[in-house]
Amino acid sequence: MSPDLPARPGQTEAEVLTPSLILDLGALERNVTRMGRLASEAGIGHRSHGKMHRSVDVQLLQQRLGGACGVCCQKVSEAEAFVAGGIADLLVTNQVRQPAMVDRLARLAGAARVAVCVDDPASVAELSEAATRHGSEIGVFVEMDVGQGRCGVATDAEVVDLARAAAQAPGLRFDGLQAYHGGMQHLPSAEARRETARGVADRVRRAKAALAEAGLPCPTVTGGGTGSWHEDAASGAFDEVQAGSYAFMDADYGRVPGARSARLDAEWENALFVLASVLSVKPGRAILDAGLKSMSGESGPPTVFGRKFEVVNLSDEHTVLADPANALKVGDRLRLIPGHCDPTCNLHDAYVCLRDGRVEALWPVSARGRSW
Amino acid sequence: MSPDLPARPGQTEAEVLTPSLILDLGALERNVTRMGRLASEAGIGHRSHGKMHRSVDVQLLQQRLGGACGVCCQKVSEAEAFVAGGIADLLVTNQVRQPAMVDRLARLAGAARVAVCVDDPASVAELSEAATRHGSEIGVFVEMDVGQGRCGVATDAEVVDLARAAAQAPGLRFDGLQAYHGGMQHLPSAEARRETARGVADRVRRAKAALAEAGLPCPTVTGGGTGSWHEDAASGAFDEVQAGSYAFMDADYGRVPGARSARLDAEWENALFVLASVLSVKPGRAILDAGLKSMSGESGPPTVFGRKFEVVNLSDEHTVLADPANALKVGDRLRLIPGHCDPTCNLHDAYVCLRDGRVEALWPVSARGRSW
Repeated sequence: MSPDLPARPGQTEAEVLTPSLILDLGALERNVTRMGRLASEAGIGHRSHGKMHRSVDVQLLQQRLGGACGVCCQKVSEAEAFVAGGIADLLVTNQVRQPAMVDRLARLAGAARVAVCVDDPASVAELSEAATRHGSEIGVFVEMDVGQGRCGVATDAEVVDLARAAAQAPGLRFDGLQAYHGGMQHLPSAEARRETARGVADRVRRAKAALAEAGLPCPTVTGGGTGSWHEDAASGAFDEVQAGSYAFMDADYGRVPGARSARLDAEWENALFVLASVLSVKPGRAILDAGLKSMSGESGPPTVFGRKFEVVNLSDEHTVLADPANALKVGDRLRLIPGHCDPTCNLHDAYVCLRDGRVEALWPVSARGRSW
Repeated sequence: MSPDLPARPGQTEAEVLTPSLILDLGALERNVTRMGRLASEAGIGHRSHGKMHRSVDVQLLQQRLGGACGVCCQKVSEAEAFVAGGIADLLVTNQVRQPAMVDRLARLAGAARVAVCVDDPASVAELSEAATRHGSEIGVFVEMDVGQGRCGVATDAEVVDLARAAAQAPGLRFDGLQAYHGGMQHLPSAEARRETARGVADRVRRAKAALAEAGLPCPTVTGGGTGSWHEDAASGAFDEVQAGSYAFMDADYGRVPGARSARLDAEWENALFVLASVLSVKPGRAILDAGLKSMSGESGPPTVFGRKFEVVNLSDEHTVLADPANALKVGDRLRLIPGHCDPTCNLHDAYVCLRDGRVEALWPVSARGRSW
C-alpha cells in the first residue's frame, strides 16, 4: 500500500480524507450473507468474482460468511495476489497466452488449486508443457462463447476437441465448461434476461450432451454474474455462479431489473462509495473533489447516495452537481455510488472500512494494478 | 512501486508483459523540446501540468529539455510527491479546503515555492491561518471561471476582493490569476477555439484592469492547455500556459484540430501507449488482453497505433478488434493509443520507457492514486 493513505483505523467518517473509497461493512456483510443463503437455497455453488474487488479481505469474507467455494479472477498476477493472501481455490476465467504468464500460472498451481480457461488447442499444449515443467496440475475449463462475442469457442465440436485434449494432456485436468454472457447482465428486463438465459442453458446442455457422447465427464459448469445468476441458477445448467458486483453494487447495476424487484439495488445494498467533499459552491451548483482519478466514468457518472442531486459533469478531479437551491456548503460530505465498481476499485490502494461511523480497518486492494 | 512490474531495464519490447503503459522516450523528448521552443518563440512561460503524468521523471524532463518553470497539479498529495522528487516550484491549480490538506499544503510551502487557487474569501482565511502556523508563505492565484462552469469566481469585483484579501493576509502572497477553460481544449475547429480564446482574454484583461485600478499588481496570469495554449499565447493575456497532454498525446486530443494542422496529433507525436497482446482470435475478430483496468474509457475507446483495426468493444480486461481478414494471430502485439491520457496514467505503477526497441528505464507514476 502507498505510504499515503486517506484514513487510519479509529477515525470517524468525518476525519477520512476525500476522495476515498469506502466500504460500509454492515451492508457488505448483509449482501455476502444473503448471497450465501440464496445460492444455497437454489442448490448452486458460488465462486465469487475477485476481479471486481481485487481484495483478499473481501474474498475471505465471501468464503467465511457467504460460503464461496473459492475465487475467480481474470489475470494470473491477480491470482498470485489471492494465493499470497491465503486463497486456496482459484479459477482464472480468461485465456492465458503470454509465455511468461503461462509459466507463472503453472508455478502457482503448485501452491493452490488453480484452473484456467482455454479456447484454442495451442493453449492446451502450452499449459501442459508448463505444468509438466513445474510438476504441477492445472485445471482446464473450456470457454464457450454463449453470446458475448469475445473469447470462447462457438461449436460443440470445438468443446469436445478441447476437452479431450485437456483430459489427455500431461499436467492438465479437465474441469468443465465456462459459459459467461456479459451482455446478459445488464438487459433491461427480467423477461429478456430469462429468455437469454434459456438460450445460454440450451447451448450448455448441448455441449454437455456432446461431451457425454464422447465419453468425457464434465465435472463443473461455471458462469453467470450479478445480473443473471438467478436465471442461470434456475436454468439447471450451471453448477456454480460467478457473481461479483452483488457484494458492492454500483450505479450501473443498480438500474438493472432484479429477479425479485424492479431494480437490482433493491435486492443488494450499496456497500461501496466514493466519499467526496464539496470543494466550491457557485450559484446553482456545487463542485465536489472527486473525479475520474477516483471513479471510472465509462459506464456513466456516479449517483449521490441518499440525496437528490443530479451530476451534471464528471472530469478528472471534479464532479459538478446541480444544486438549484444551493443547499450544499463547502466541506459537506457526500457518498457517491460509482458508475461501475470493478474499474473504480482498481483506482485505489485501500478500502476504508466503516462501521457505525468509525474506520474499523483499511483493507488493501491487494491486486490493484495487476493486469498481466 | 508494486513489487510486481511488467518489465525490467534492458529487456526488449517483445519481453515486456502486457498490458502495460509504455513511453516512447524519443517521441516524448521531441514533444517536450518542441513545446519549449514554441513557448519561447511565443514569448510565454510554460508550467507543465503534472496532473496528466503524475511523474517526477517526466516533470524533470520537461524542466530540463522544455524549459518548464515548474509544475502545476491538482491535489496537495500530488504536490507532495513532486516535492519529494525535487521539484521546487509548484502551483496547485485547484481549491484546497479540507483542513488536514490545508495544513499539509502550508507545511509543504516551507520546503518549496508553493501556490494554490482560491475562489472564496473563507479559503483565503484558512490558508493564511495555516501558513502563519507553519511559518511558511503560500502563493495565491484567484481562480476565474472563464466559461468552464466549475470552480472560480465570475465577476471582477470578486477577483479584486480576493486578491486584496490575499495580498493583505499574513503568510500569503498574491501571485495573480488562474484562468482555465477546459471545454475550449476540445472545440471542433480552430476558429471556434480562437473565438473562445478571445472571450477568455477579454475577461482576463478586464480583471487585470480592475486589479490595477484597485492598486493591486498582478504578477502572473496562468492557464490554457494543450488544445488552447497557442491561441491563449497569441492573445497576449497570459504569462504562462499549463499544457500537459502535448507531451504524451491521446486519442481524444488527437482528433482536435490543431493551430497549424488539421489534427493535434499531426503536431504532437504519440508517446504514450498501452501495449497489448492478442489473447484470442475468432472469425472476424481479435481479442486483446487490455481493458478498462489498463486504460480509461470515458473519452471513448483506444485507437490502434499504426494499424487499421477498429475497436468494437472495450470491457474490464479486454479490447475487441474487428479483424475481417483475421490478419492478427495470438501473441501479436499492438500499441493502443488510450482515449484519455490523464486517468490512464493513474491506473499504472510505472511507465515502461522504451528507446530503440529496448526498455531503458521504469519510471514510477510517482503520484498515482494520490487524490486528496
